[in-house]
Amino acid sequence: MEERKKIEEPVAAAFARFNEEFEASLRSDTRLLSSAIEHLLNATGKHIRPLLVLLTAEACGGVRDNTINAAIFLELLHTATLIHDDVIDETKQRRGLPSLNAIFDNRVAVLVGDYVLSTALIRSIHTGDLRIVEIVSNLGRELSEGEIKQLETADESVLDENLYLQVIHKKTASLLSACAEIGAISAGASDETVAVCRRFGELMGYSFQIKDDIFDYFKNSDLGKPTGNDIREGKVTLPLLYALRQGGEEAAPYLRMILSKDFSDTNIDELIAYAKVKGGVAYAERRMAEYRDKALAELNRLPDSPARQSLAALANYIVERKK
Amino acid sequence: MEERKKIEEPVAAAFARFNEEFEASLRSDTRLLSSAIEHLLNATGKHIRPLLVLLTAEACGGVRDNTINAAIFLELLHTATLIHDDVIDETKQRRGLPSLNAIFDNRVAVLVGDYVLSTALIRSIHTGDLRIVEIVSNLGRELSEGEIKQLETADESVLDENLYLQVIHKKTASLLSACAEIGAISAGASDETVAVCRRFGELMGYSFQIKDDIFDYFKNSDLGKPTGNDIREGKVTLPLLYALRQGGEEAAPYLRMILSKDFSDTNIDELIAYAKVKGGVAYAERRMAEYRDKALAELNRLPDSPARQSLAALANYIVERKK
Repeated sequence: MEERKKIEEPVAAAFARFNEEFEASLRSDTRLLSSAIEHLLNATGKHIRPLLVLLTAEACGGVRDNTINAAIFLELLHTATLIHDDVIDETKQRRGLPSLNAIFDNRVAVLVGDYVLSTALIRSIHTGDLRIVEIVSNLGRELSEGEIKQLETADESVLDENLYLQVIHKKTASLLSACAEIGAISAGASDETVAVCRRFGELMGYSFQIKDDIFDYFKNSDLGKPTGNDIREGKVTLPLLYALRQGGEEAAPYLRMILSKDFSDTNIDELIAYAKVKGGVAYAERRMAEYRDKALAELNRLPDSPARQSLAALANYIVERKK
Repeated sequence: MEERKKIEEPVAAAFARFNEEFEASLRSDTRLLSSAIEHLLNATGKHIRPLLVLLTAEACGGVRDNTINAAIFLELLHTATLIHDDVIDETKQRRGLPSLNAIFDNRVAVLVGDYVLSTALIRSIHTGDLRIVEIVSNLGRELSEGEIKQLETADESVLDENLYLQVIHKKTASLLSACAEIGAISAGASDETVAVCRRFGELMGYSFQIKDDIFDYFKNSDLGKPTGNDIREGKVTLPLLYALRQGGEEAAPYLRMILSKDFSDTNIDELIAYAKVKGGVAYAERRMAEYRDKALAELNRLPDSPARQSLAALANYIVERKK
């Protein structure tokens, strides 16, 4: 928490403005919607994405009004995808609280997701910059395509690291990439600087998602997510994928559990243990660190500043966080 | 069908272009998505909305490239809301074919809806006109808010014609209004003409939805929708609403069926019969004709042309259609 405060420092005032306007942007006079939104705001996340937008802008010349707008609509877009993801995955908990689909029902959750998504797009239009609106819309398409691809290739991607990387790109790296890119655009950065920021965000996005995926192999009640949840949903992430590939013949019974979707609690425990024993978690940690290092190398192309230092600290925080 | 062809005549070439580009706009290299989309295109609807866009533009000076773009993204937006509606209402049939959620599952249907929605927005950006993008995004929000309102007020709106009208505005009239408005904008019409078209589309939208609601009181297998479906979902539409209001004391048992959601087949049949006997269907038909007449009066403010005549024919077709 201490560390997080320090990261926010160069954009503290802007971040406070973001928080205030983000809540205001979701207000509605429809009763059901208001109560759903209040629940959402209580289960608010780490706001990594708006922080990335603000810090990138600050590192590229300074936060402007459009930077705040961008931080808001990108967090809204992220929120919308989480709501729909929970419906899709039938997740009952999100950030330690019941998910929207658990409290209300799928109908309300689909609609609230649509509402938040439209709110995001309306907000992006307020920037008056069609380039920004276009990045956001393409992103909306990429995020839904990514989820569909994940459903479709669930079986094939069990052993295919490239498919895994494609999925986490569409799922996470594309959004973090857009955050850094739009942050830079909103500060009036040159095309070259915008490209540097886009790559920095993308690389950080890979390490972020690999970290999230590693959490699923450990018990952490704070995260509000039971261990092995991904596997239970048929999603084989990097640690297990690596173990299955290393295992050869020996991996056959584990592969069978996965392909036949035989996810009893004992089997989940066995799969997790197998991923660890075969060095899958250690491998994923190495890959995660590689992406972080590449992200930092990209970042070093920007001129030094407190905001740039915070971006480096953010890239480190993402791979070192405990939840 | 003959009549429909005649309505299309003033924009026949543009309509052919729309059809071609609409299909192309949905292509994807993701297998699951392609097969979902192929299914969608087979279950294609009457294309009332793109026809309205094209005819309005033609009546306001002529179809341009942006008119075709607008026809495409407005039909995409409509398609996306239908997909999510089917998830929300657990509808198993759409246009005589199984719905996406029935063939695939809710997960795929939510994601395909998101994908189509993003495609709509990307397409709207191709117009390069922020005013158009803004109308579309506001519409996305209004459509989802409308559905939420309908869920929320289901019980109260049983006897309240104003609430009913608010819901059908957000559900249907707002989209038809935007079709006519954007059609006019795309043709470079004056603000005054744009406002006339917006009102024309809105009024036609009310009559369109009342007609759709009336269908639910009659058996029509072509429509692919079993009779009484709305009531079964707890939606009291104008014919029944009127009957309940007229009935006074006598309506009490019918009201009880609705509020306790006691929707056995016998009860549905009784509710439908009651709506007819108390003149509810006749009343709804009168209201529908009133909206049509107001729409035609608005239309007469535009200079006469073959396209204007087709718009009048379209307004009539909408209230006279057999499905």
